[in-house]
Amino acid sequence: MLEHGGRLRAAAQRYGIPLSDWLDLSTGIAPEPWPVPAIPLDAWARLPEEGDGLAEAACACYGAAHALPVAGSQAAIQALPQLFAPGRVGVLTPSYAEHAQAWQRGGHRLVRLAAEDIEAQLDTLDVLVLANPNNPTGERFEPSRLLDWQARLEQRGGCLLVDEAFMDCTPGYSLAAYSQRPGLIVLRSFGKFFGLAGIRLGFVLAEAALLARLHERLGPWTVGGPARALGRQVLGPAGSAARERRARQLQAAGERLAGLLSAHGLAPAGGTALFQWLRTPQAARLHDFLARRGILVRRFETPASLRFGLPADEAGWQRLARALADYRKETT
Amino acid sequence: MLEHGGRLRAAAQRYGIPLSDWLDLSTGIAPEPWPVPAIPLDAWARLPEEGDGLAEAACACYGAAHALPVAGSQAAIQALPQLFAPGRVGVLTPSYAEHAQAWQRGGHRLVRLAAEDIEAQLDTLDVLVLANPNNPTGERFEPSRLLDWQARLEQRGGCLLVDEAFMDCTPGYSLAAYSQRPGLIVLRSFGKFFGLAGIRLGFVLAEAALLARLHERLGPWTVGGPARALGRQVLGPAGSAARERRARQLQAAGERLAGLLSAHGLAPAGGTALFQWLRTPQAARLHDFLARRGILVRRFETPASLRFGLPADEAGWQRLARALADYRKETT
Repeated sequence: MLEHGGRLRAAAQRYGIPLSDWLDLSTGIAPEPWPVPAIPLDAWARLPEEGDGLAEAACACYGAAHALPVAGSQAAIQALPQLFAPGRVGVLTPSYAEHAQAWQRGGHRLVRLAAEDIEAQLDTLDVLVLANPNNPTGERFEPSRLLDWQARLEQRGGCLLVDEAFMDCTPGYSLAAYSQRPGLIVLRSFGKFFGLAGIRLGFVLAEAALLARLHERLGPWTVGGPARALGRQVLGPAGSAARERRARQLQAAGERLAGLLSAHGLAPAGGTALFQWLRTPQAARLHDFLARRGILVRRFETPASLRFGLPADEAGWQRLARALADYRKETT
Repeated sequence: MLEHGGRLRAAAQRYGIPLSDWLDLSTGIAPEPWPVPAIPLDAWARLPEEGDGLAEAACACYGAAHALPVAGSQAAIQALPQLFAPGRVGVLTPSYAEHAQAWQRGGHRLVRLAAEDIEAQLDTLDVLVLANPNNPTGERFEPSRLLDWQARLEQRGGCLLVDEAFMDCTPGYSLAAYSQRPGLIVLRSFGKFFGLAGIRLGFVLAEAALLARLHERLGPWTVGGPARALGRQVLGPAGSAARERRARQLQAAGERLAGLLSAHGLAPAGGTALFQWLRTPQAARLHDFLARRGILVRRFETPASLRFGLPADEAGWQRLARALADYRKETT
């Protein structure tokens, strides 16, 4: 199992700090959960039924023609490589590591590609997998560029898979509107933007035939009833203004986080509304420094870097600011 | 996608009867849901973490050494065949059809076996898959017999997979206590007995090494936070007396259903607490007769048969009794 953010229990044990005392910035999940609506009893009790309007709500919200609800975009990441004949798969590096692992496990030949090497390699690939914006680097890819790559891949029967898990605050970069094109698959995450990662909900946007094959592969009832009921309400038209407000607030919070890091001599190399990415040879040291103060961030080894999520409240912001100031004192 | 019970929306459309007017007996799910406890906000908001005590609660409740929580036993059914090298797999027939489909999709050679043919074929198999009690026939297998089969399979590196989705009311038949033996895998369902099929929770009981491989295959966070919180509470020691009371009540309801069918000349060929199985060449006709009255049961084509689930309340019992009496009048 790969390491992930959100492993607060492990950190609590390792550093001997009680769970409730931590400031957990180790994930890219919005810290304030969207208000959980009342869930009808039937959603808990009955087998979830499709045709409940969830896919339609997602299509309308994301601007896509077809959507398959899945139990978190992770479920699609695990299953998609099994739908393709073994081939040469370019995977953006660094990026969310589950992609590379899933394609490798599926028997494909992996080509790990830095963003700047994709163009030169593209015509040798069967599938190109990337995240836009990328996690953890925050790098963004222009839609026109991605559509050019998609068209070139598709001409040879290939496919572009774009993980848009962190796209909600920058919808202008999304390929959702093009996702019915053959050779294009777009993943959307529900839990990150809405701060509801526990419910396991995500969507695959693609042409209908591919979604049908994925559905068959995943099997019935993969998304739970409470998640379906919640998703339907939150993504529905009544939530539109609140979703836009949330996007603006998160965008501002992301800028505040970038500013805070920069003010302490730790300017991020990139980021999104939900996280900032700090590339530094001191990553291990800073990670440990913060953890000893009960602040958990996500550490990456290659390249040596840290990902900071958003604090949930003003006390959290102040606590992070103090810790960064202390770190600066200790290291200068 | 295979046909399943619980497809009430489709029936409502086909028969032009509003959803809310149906008596849905098409599933084997307990009709009265276990009271849904308060779910902490963190369960919705945060990524689910293992080490939360859910596996331990399941082990204590089922009497097993090791348990892996999965998003419904269906999730394990889909994934288990991928853990085995292609082989000769005996699958009990008729039984829950997803097993056969999953092993076939996984590249194995299927041998469909009636219960009475297993003994003669056993030593030619790599894996034997059956449900105990069986769905939809209700047939029960004695633990001593299953353990003999398991030992013989295991001697040749083989495996016995027992789906105990409907075992909760007859725990004396369970192999949970033996499930750490190599070559034995036991599946338990949470939603059927507790009437909470919407949350997608089940457990795989087996030796630790196999559970680790299955976990790796399924990936992280497959069971949602609300399901984990709920499962932990419901399976915990505080619920023990209430679980036993529920088992007795469901057992009595199953006997009432068998009696009702018999009283109308439709004696079931088998059953469990949660369903009765009626084998009749009139299956299609009776299915349609009931559906035109807004009563949905599950129909099987091979052999021609119907599965009746439990009505939720006295009004439902009376409605079913009237429809069965009407059917008898029409057909005699």
